[in-house]
Amino acid sequence: MELFPAPGRNHLFVPGPTNIPDRVLQAMNRNNEDHRSPTFPALAKSVLEDVKLLFRTQTGTPFIFPSSGTGAWESALTNTMSPGDRIIVPRMGQFCVLWINLMTRLHFNVDVIECEWGEGIDLEILKQKLQSDHTHAVKAVCVVHNETSTGVTNDLSAVRKALDEARHPALLLVDGVSSVGAMDFRMDDWGVDVALTGSQKALSLPTGLGILCASLKAIETSKQAKYPRGYFDWAEYLKSYKAGTYSPYTPSVQLLYGLRASLDIILKQEGLENVIARHLRLAEATRRAVRAWGLTVCARKPQWDSAVVTGVVVPSSLDSNDVIKIAWKKYNLSLGLGLGEVNGKVFRIGHLGYVNELQLLGALAGVELVLLEVGYPVIFGSGVAAAQAFLSKQTPIIASRL
Amino acid sequence: MELFPAPGRNHLFVPGPTNIPDRVLQAMNRNNEDHRSPTFPALAKSVLEDVKLLFRTQTGTPFIFPSSGTGAWESALTNTMSPGDRIIVPRMGQFCVLWINLMTRLHFNVDVIECEWGEGIDLEILKQKLQSDHTHAVKAVCVVHNETSTGVTNDLSAVRKALDEARHPALLLVDGVSSVGAMDFRMDDWGVDVALTGSQKALSLPTGLGILCASLKAIETSKQAKYPRGYFDWAEYLKSYKAGTYSPYTPSVQLLYGLRASLDIILKQEGLENVIARHLRLAEATRRAVRAWGLTVCARKPQWDSAVVTGVVVPSSLDSNDVIKIAWKKYNLSLGLGLGEVNGKVFRIGHLGYVNELQLLGALAGVELVLLEVGYPVIFGSGVAAAQAFLSKQTPIIASRL
Amino acid sequence: MELFPAPGRNHLFVPGPTNIPDRVLQAMNRNNEDHRSPTFPALAKSVLEDVKLLFRTQTGTPFIFPSSGTGAWESALTNTMSPGDRIIVPRMGQFCVLWINLMTRLHFNVDVIECEWGEGIDLEILKQKLQSDHTHAVKAVCVVHNETSTGVTNDLSAVRKALDEARHPALLLVDGVSSVGAMDFRMDDWGVDVALTGSQKALSLPTGLGILCASLKAIETSKQAKYPRGYFDWAEYLKSYKAGTYSPYTPSVQLLYGLRASLDIILKQEGLENVIARHLRLAEATRRAVRAWGLTVCARKPQWDSAVVTGVVVPSSLDSNDVIKIAWKKYNLSLGLGLGEVNGKVFRIGHLGYVNELQLLGALAGVELVLLEVGYPVIFGSGVAAAQAFLSKQTPIIASRL
Amino acid sequence: MELFPAPGRNHLFVPGPTNIPDRVLQAMNRNNEDHRSPTFPALAKSVLEDVKLLFRTQTGTPFIFPSSGTGAWESALTNTMSPGDRIIVPRMGQFCVLWINLMTRLHFNVDVIECEWGEGIDLEILKQKLQSDHTHAVKAVCVVHNETSTGVTNDLSAVRKALDEARHPALLLVDGVSSVGAMDFRMDDWGVDVALTGSQKALSLPTGLGILCASLKAIETSKQAKYPRGYFDWAEYLKSYKAGTYSPYTPSVQLLYGLRASLDIILKQEGLENVIARHLRLAEATRRAVRAWGLTVCARKPQWDSAVVTGVVVPSSLDSNDVIKIAWKKYNLSLGLGLGEVNGKVFRIGHLGYVNELQLLGALAGVELVLLEVGYPVIFGSGVAAAQAFLSKQTPIIASRL
Repeated sequence: MELFPAPGRNHLFVPGPTNIPDRVLQAMNRNNEDHRSPTFPALAKSVLEDVKLLFRTQTGTPFIFPSSGTGAWESALTNTMSPGDRIIVPRMGQFCVLWINLMTRLHFNVDVIECEWGEGIDLEILKQKLQSDHTHAVKAVCVVHNETSTGVTNDLSAVRKALDEARHPALLLVDGVSSVGAMDFRMDDWGVDVALTGSQKALSLPTGLGILCASLKAIETSKQAKYPRGYFDWAEYLKSYKAGTYSPYTPSVQLLYGLRASLDIILKQEGLENVIARHLRLAEATRRAVRAWGLTVCARKPQWDSAVVTGVVVPSSLDSNDVIKIAWKKYNLSLGLGLGEVNGKVFRIGHLGYVNELQLLGALAGVELVLLEVGYPVIFGSGVAAAQAFLSKQTPIIASRL
Repeated sequence: MELFPAPGRNHLFVPGPTNIPDRVLQAMNRNNEDHRSPTFPALAKSVLEDVKLLFRTQTGTPFIFPSSGTGAWESALTNTMSPGDRIIVPRMGQFCVLWINLMTRLHFNVDVIECEWGEGIDLEILKQKLQSDHTHAVKAVCVVHNETSTGVTNDLSAVRKALDEARHPALLLVDGVSSVGAMDFRMDDWGVDVALTGSQKALSLPTGLGILCASLKAIETSKQAKYPRGYFDWAEYLKSYKAGTYSPYTPSVQLLYGLRASLDIILKQEGLENVIARHLRLAEATRRAVRAWGLTVCARKPQWDSAVVTGVVVPSSLDSNDVIKIAWKKYNLSLGLGLGEVNGKVFRIGHLGYVNELQLLGALAGVELVLLEVGYPVIFGSGVAAAQAFLSKQTPIIASRL
Repeated sequence: MELFPAPGRNHLFVPGPTNIPDRVLQAMNRNNEDHRSPTFPALAKSVLEDVKLLFRTQTGTPFIFPSSGTGAWESALTNTMSPGDRIIVPRMGQFCVLWINLMTRLHFNVDVIECEWGEGIDLEILKQKLQSDHTHAVKAVCVVHNETSTGVTNDLSAVRKALDEARHPALLLVDGVSSVGAMDFRMDDWGVDVALTGSQKALSLPTGLGILCASLKAIETSKQAKYPRGYFDWAEYLKSYKAGTYSPYTPSVQLLYGLRASLDIILKQEGLENVIARHLRLAEATRRAVRAWGLTVCARKPQWDSAVVTGVVVPSSLDSNDVIKIAWKKYNLSLGLGLGEVNGKVFRIGHLGYVNELQLLGALAGVELVLLEVGYPVIFGSGVAAAQAFLSKQTPIIASRL
Repeated sequence: MELFPAPGRNHLFVPGPTNIPDRVLQAMNRNNEDHRSPTFPALAKSVLEDVKLLFRTQTGTPFIFPSSGTGAWESALTNTMSPGDRIIVPRMGQFCVLWINLMTRLHFNVDVIECEWGEGIDLEILKQKLQSDHTHAVKAVCVVHNETSTGVTNDLSAVRKALDEARHPALLLVDGVSSVGAMDFRMDDWGVDVALTGSQKALSLPTGLGILCASLKAIETSKQAKYPRGYFDWAEYLKSYKAGTYSPYTPSVQLLYGLRASLDIILKQEGLENVIARHLRLAEATRRAVRAWGLTVCARKPQWDSAVVTGVVVPSSLDSNDVIKIAWKKYNLSLGLGLGEVNGKVFRIGHLGYVNELQLLGALAGVELVLLEVGYPVIFGSGVAAAQAFLSKQTPIIASRL
């Protein structure tokens, strides 16, 4: 079944869901199996071990939920807190907004740090809030590592430092949905208590797995936390680990075989350091293209530049939604919408997952075609050339082809 | 990656996850796509409409969650009730146990009707409870339509009648995980308020979709219900339906393409009536085999016989887990474990999903081989012959090959 | 696209094309690639080496043609002979007939040994012909190792002995289409000069590869042989081996990746000896079922029994084509037609490739259902029971699951 | 199994094998089936009918061989001629060379028209040869429609005209391997007697099908032609068409299901006229890029420009093989080697099959990166911009997304 078919390959440049490697598609192309046979535990153990490498944690406990990232958000909150607990959280973009909405709907007491969209968390305000919280009413600081709607990355080590300096025991819960596995993320080094991601981002899988790691402290906290939990309850998983069944309910074995293949590609085939370097390279190339077009990126300072998605601000005379529409209708190019506050003002180029230099250059060439069509006087090839100039110097020979 | 590889096809005779048709595998074998393009709403609308046909409802509202059936359980409860609300629920087997556990963990007030495993809900007790509840403290009656751990099917129309006769306004919430799409299920006719299933059962998909339909009354109730909801919140879905985005967060498009194919197979290719008849046919054949072996089925009366799974009680001298082990180790046959109370006493033959006569006969022949090996004096071919005698008369010519 | 769809799995019990393992399907599920990159030679070298293990030859040279087995027949003949050369060949069944037809159309001088269908080559006549050929006009003896139309296997070591005793230099060309990789086949030990098979048989791949091995003597002969050759010319392949390109024209990389997976399964995962033992086991079980039904196998003496296909002779009152038709129309069971002389008199049960005990038992149960329907008074379960009794004693625990 | 793995998608810009659409991969991802059931004839009939639409013939007879295009070459020759027959054939590039080699090996009497590589057939010489052949010794004129090694397309209507003007009865045999289904090809209008292609080109399938159409005159001629034929014999196919079995030996059903999907995409989804227009568009964009780089295309005059592949001549100081190597090693870009006479002097950009504007622009950007690296002073973005300027005006909105 093809809806709106178009010749050639769809250029998927949203910041997730991302392109699935053939090897992952192959791994998932299989019949169901009995998850109560010895097969599933062997598979589950193997991926759980490697998930820890992806999160860079030695002492963390991984959980894999059949859910989207939103479910992982809920799991992080409800397992570590009690009803009405206070949370500090910055509102820096649409995914912050959505997580905050979820916190509110779950009746947590949300203490929002308002930020300009395009900026990272205001560390000064965070410090003040933490230092003035003498009763330690704040139970958690929740931070989106990479705000996908603006292309802004927070400095998590600075957040950790703020907590440490205030000697505040609040947990640090991190949405790493678009960062873990693509950006430099260090759960243990940065003292992250819960980190989470979704399968359809850096892991280049279909949507359907919410993946978390919890620190020892988070696990301990969860034993006292009073929020009622059902589907997303860590305790049920911990029981299943102990029992050797590895899932309290029916898991998606296809996605887990896909995850096995994806982890093999990231950790063994390309290597996590190389994956991170590739994302940085493509991101810088993209920003150079944007500037060559005479446009600005959404992130207001280089310190916040994202390695996985670039928000592009269009002139006020234009509607960024027209860019998205024409890209899809004419060039089979899928770009990211401007979400929430920046709808109409921003479009996004995702460079996340299993994607390479020439795919990006094709997409940038496509953006140029579309920009002219919506009335922006772009010079054809200008952004491509700026990106090429950078990539030409930075791109290594493919390791397996030396 | 193959774990514990074995020549030939795995005979998957657990009552879910079930065998995936090639056509469904083909439909899911595809790259990710941007769920914010016009493609996804077109796909979502089309499957949501047909899900209603599967549940046989005209006025119900369908929801598809990226989750297993356990998530659907939670969604049914939290959207229709307030914390501490009273629920009547029979405990007839392991899946009742698990649902009740979930209710308890979610702090509902659970009024359990204890049942013998192997029997259906005690309708008399249900009636008494309902009639004595003058204040209508009971907000929901929760029934597992087909208890998969014992192979016992409840008479939902009788449950409906009990509610009606007691003029009780409690909602009727039904776990149709192993029944919807395989057994005769009539949401509207039976006044079911919430019915739910999972993708890995009759729909013959991988695990990963929790599918619900809610009656008009359930939808209305959900607007007043006070249980905090996050991931499984209907209100968010209803907003997305109105907005035309069709999902409040990232959906699994591969599973939805698979669902499209599965619904096409069930509703258009084979026809729901024929699907139901096939399940009844295979179930009766299986029970005749069991009797020919000199064994008994777990369901204590024919009125409770399940069309999708047959629990087989082994003599007390045997451990049913040995049957499962040898079946897997020697014949690549996956049978259902005895769960919970009946562990060691019962094994289960699933005949659910996209499976046919000869697959079943091969599995029955395999059970005979295994029974002898665990020390039960079965006569080879006896169960197969009993099943054949029935199937020989009942099996129609395949419709497309007349 | 589904033509004549039917619920559940097709029971493919023709003696080829055979069931494809999931792992092989996965390996072939990939995009095209440039066969002039370093990838293809690496792949080709690896499979060519392992093909030799399958044929059990150390000194043979393997060739893989994009063709069916018929193309391999042509390749064997035209590369080793000159126009009009004399060939001795037995006519024991339909595939002999077809090969002889091809020889005739290619203008070879064919000296046919007429055999009863159901019997192997008449070794006495062969010896006479060889011993009386004082001028060595006979350039080749062509033998079908396993005649798939009757389920008759020739004793190739006896053929070799006949050549040796006659001190006759004729080449020994062997059609191993349905034997190599499933039956005991020893190219070097038996002095076979050209052996050939097709991908859709023991290798459990789609049709599309004609695979040959040529002895040193055959290679030498090919340099003098005068038959004009184009597509199937060994010399072009030998040049490509030398050049490191490994194919004189565009190869099918998908099938070669599939072949890689198939060789891995046969040689490393299950082991060739175990594969051969499994085929012998399933064949004996099938013959015992046939006898339990009161029917006879096509092979007239046990010495000719085939390990990969069993021809079943129906009573003269029945038309074996009816068996095939009903099996397909009602039970989604694909059995082998009676071909050529035995059409209407014989149907065939293939037990070739990646198939196991329970699949076979399901098919045997299906044959019983069909036999009764065409009017043969079979006792349900009788053949199944006979097969079970044998398999019960002979089937080992799956090696990976010990 | 991944050989030389690299992140992201391989940019396959050789002029075949081409990129396979997901829908085609899906269609081929299936088990084997019995080709003697009613399924295969239904499938075969359906694709044979539509193959005629692809070749634009109403009276032609299609044949589909399990082979590469080389097999189709042999089939065209051996079915229409007798040993030693005289053939006129231009030598314009490597594929002419290979076809001529095949003719020679098959002992035909080959009358070669030597051409400059980069030019089309010399029509004047052709006319002279035909007009001077008073005895009609010439039995066939063999022309490669599109010489893939140079990117030169012949004017077939002019060849036809030369035959007509000379009133010469020779058959016109056309290699349409890289043209049929992508370029304007008119079998009936141009009086082509045999036209042939391979599955891995415009049809975007794996290698493995040699596809021919024969005119009524060619079919008649084949009945008298004396060349011995085996595997590639039309007569055997014609018998199978009559018998309703549709193949004289085991066909590759997977490829035929793939062909069914491919024909659906070309003929129904995109439309053959649109497919041809897309190829013309991408080709012109490519040539403009080449010129913007300051390089020349291999085709010496615009009349010979190919719609499916562009040969790019590198300055004499460079080795075009270095371009291919670096493209593959660093950018996962597969470009076409310079073959035969132009090896080292030419590299080729294929724009054939299921490929679109942005894929091409990505590849052109990649070529720029590589050119600089091999020492050619390209200006980044120059070729991309030239292509964009053209595509910007010529690319229509995708029909399904209007």
